[in-house]
Amino acid sequence: MGIFLFTDFGAADLYVGQLKAVFAHKAPGIPVVDLLHEAPAFNVRASAHLLAALAAKIPPGSVTLAVVDPGVGGPRAAVAVEIDRRWFVGPDNGLLSVLAARAATAAVWRITWQPEHMSPSFHGRDLFAPVAAALARSESPTGKAARVGRLQVDLGAIDLAEIIYIDHYGNAFTGLRAHALARDTCVVAGGAALEYARVFSTAPAGRTFWYENSLGLVEIAGNGCSAAAKLGLAVGQPVAYSV
Amino acid sequence: MGIFLFTDFGAADLYVGQLKAVFAHKAPGIPVVDLLHEAPAFNVRASAHLLAALAAKIPPGSVTLAVVDPGVGGPRAAVAVEIDRRWFVGPDNGLLSVLAARAATAAVWRITWQPEHMSPSFHGRDLFAPVAAALARSESPTGKAARVGRLQVDLGAIDLAEIIYIDHYGNAFTGLRAHALARDTCVVAGGAALEYARVFSTAPAGRTFWYENSLGLVEIAGNGCSAAAKLGLAVGQPVAYSV
Amino acid sequence: MGIFLFTDFGAADLYVGQLKAVFAHKAPGIPVVDLLHEAPAFNVRASAHLLAALAAKIPPGSVTLAVVDPGVGGPRAAVAVEIDRRWFVGPDNGLLSVLAARAATAAVWRITWQPEHMSPSFHGRDLFAPVAAALARSESPTGKAARVGRLQVDLGAIDLAEIIYIDHYGNAFTGLRAHALARDTCVVAGGAALEYARVFSTAPAGRTFWYENSLGLVEIAGNGCSAAAKLGLAVGQPVAYSV
Repeated sequence: MGIFLFTDFGAADLYVGQLKAVFAHKAPGIPVVDLLHEAPAFNVRASAHLLAALAAKIPPGSVTLAVVDPGVGGPRAAVAVEIDRRWFVGPDNGLLSVLAARAATAAVWRITWQPEHMSPSFHGRDLFAPVAAALARSESPTGKAARVGRLQVDLGAIDLAEIIYIDHYGNAFTGLRAHALARDTCVVAGGAALEYARVFSTAPAGRTFWYENSLGLVEIAGNGCSAAAKLGLAVGQPVAYSV
Repeated sequence: MGIFLFTDFGAADLYVGQLKAVFAHKAPGIPVVDLLHEAPAFNVRASAHLLAALAAKIPPGSVTLAVVDPGVGGPRAAVAVEIDRRWFVGPDNGLLSVLAARAATAAVWRITWQPEHMSPSFHGRDLFAPVAAALARSESPTGKAARVGRLQVDLGAIDLAEIIYIDHYGNAFTGLRAHALARDTCVVAGGAALEYARVFSTAPAGRTFWYENSLGLVEIAGNGCSAAAKLGLAVGQPVAYSV
Repeated sequence: MGIFLFTDFGAADLYVGQLKAVFAHKAPGIPVVDLLHEAPAFNVRASAHLLAALAAKIPPGSVTLAVVDPGVGGPRAAVAVEIDRRWFVGPDNGLLSVLAARAATAAVWRITWQPEHMSPSFHGRDLFAPVAAALARSESPTGKAARVGRLQVDLGAIDLAEIIYIDHYGNAFTGLRAHALARDTCVVAGGAALEYARVFSTAPAGRTFWYENSLGLVEIAGNGCSAAAKLGLAVGQPVAYSV
């Protein structure tokens, strides 16, 4: 149980607090969890792959509010998607589509409800959060949404050979799931060819390498150094691999 | 219901966690919401206008702890103010005064209680948080505070023609409420004259503009760029406007 | 009551959210408090002294998850330590040892339980959090841990004459407890000799000084300026003092 937040808002910006004020008011007693803020800003594709990897850690019975929404105020639709007994609420811009495409079943609902007052720039607070609060209170979506066949924007299920996230240590996540790569695979990023290590402490100090991170993704890391700084990595850069 | 935090502490600094430790101990079971940290540091005036705008999103029945307190340890008083069935607790240095001046009614209580041990540099933890916890438990203020006629420092109700906040995208909030400005108003900030746009996507890419943001304030923003970086904006800079 | 988090994860990184997802699942209804993230990264010694100072603010009946764990995936043991009716769960690498050495009694349990799947790089999520959740649910540790005589790595109880933390204002905490220093003591850091001030507002504007901070530590601060920037201070630098 709980409401999980996945956004590209600044973790310290005043937007997250306003989402939580909505939940305190409309879903009292239901815990709210900051799953991730500062997802790649305006980058729906990288964020969609990151959310798909993180979703394995979101427990059943929960509602996730996902907002990476550069087209807010424009014509994109709003959706609630039910996947493995969990709700995901957000824009129909591809953000939920990688997750949905990899799931056995995904039930898509287009949100038809609109609040009396809606800021054209903050649907997260005025549209998505109230819908998420209602679902978290175990209300049926039928009053606020209509079942549709599929998402309008679908990025598909396949992996993304790009940097999708860099943490504050300078470790760079890719959109590649590691189970598909043999351990003697060479990963190329930022012009450097990187070998596999099982864990940080098995790599020489100051050396960059790739490993299977705790989300099951290929991650480019350094033992005691920032791989991103050392190799000049940034979200969106391509990654290649070869045996 | 809930306890809302509005401070200029670093969002990642160890001060916020200590406030929450007090609430976990003295107001168990009551949710605590980070409304905003990293409010303009030591800038009571900008913070007061930001809090006044945010307060519209704080639900009735709640208690807000507001700490932007450069004079901590000095002679300024401590107050609890009741506005529209919500409590606000903080220093009597102007921080709560814009909010109070705009409200239909504001009941001001001067805090007379003092804890046995009080750090001269962290009244937020030792003085304001315990008082906020007691109010959140629905205790009467009479044991800890005395009703007074007014705040000692009053910044008044009128708008502030300054930059009061910059978010992590580089959007710059002003202390001007947008409903008072006609849409053909030209806003001048950082030496640039800015035209109105309804929403980000209606402005040309890379262009800066002003719009009515989700708090009802005049905000200077850029479509796909940082307005603050592009125009050299900082909190405290003056803003002008003309038709 | 509650689960307190003390880690060197980035406050905005995706690791903290995954810890909270575990607690939402395995300790539902128990509040989770971010006591501190961004503790000195990989710096067990500085973090151990910071945790020892912060622990005075952690209420009885709570469970603290402490993760500063550069040796994750290596041979270091995992422990749960009971101190003054509070549990502390983390690696046996010295992190909990300053706190334990200063306590009247500390009961040390070595964690023997292992989850079915454990990421070699994220024991915080896969090992420590489930153990902390069980203790927070008031389960006995006996099913998951064995009582042992002492910690394997013990940094001792004495103070640390180093910078151990710098907050976002640029104030620098030392590992020296202030009650042992007379007020005419001169503290030397970054090549500068600093005099005592009771509180910020008693020092001249722009002047650096030392004072007893709200955790009882010697802190090097500046009135209206960043002491860290002005004096070139960084975590790990030595501090000296003389009368």
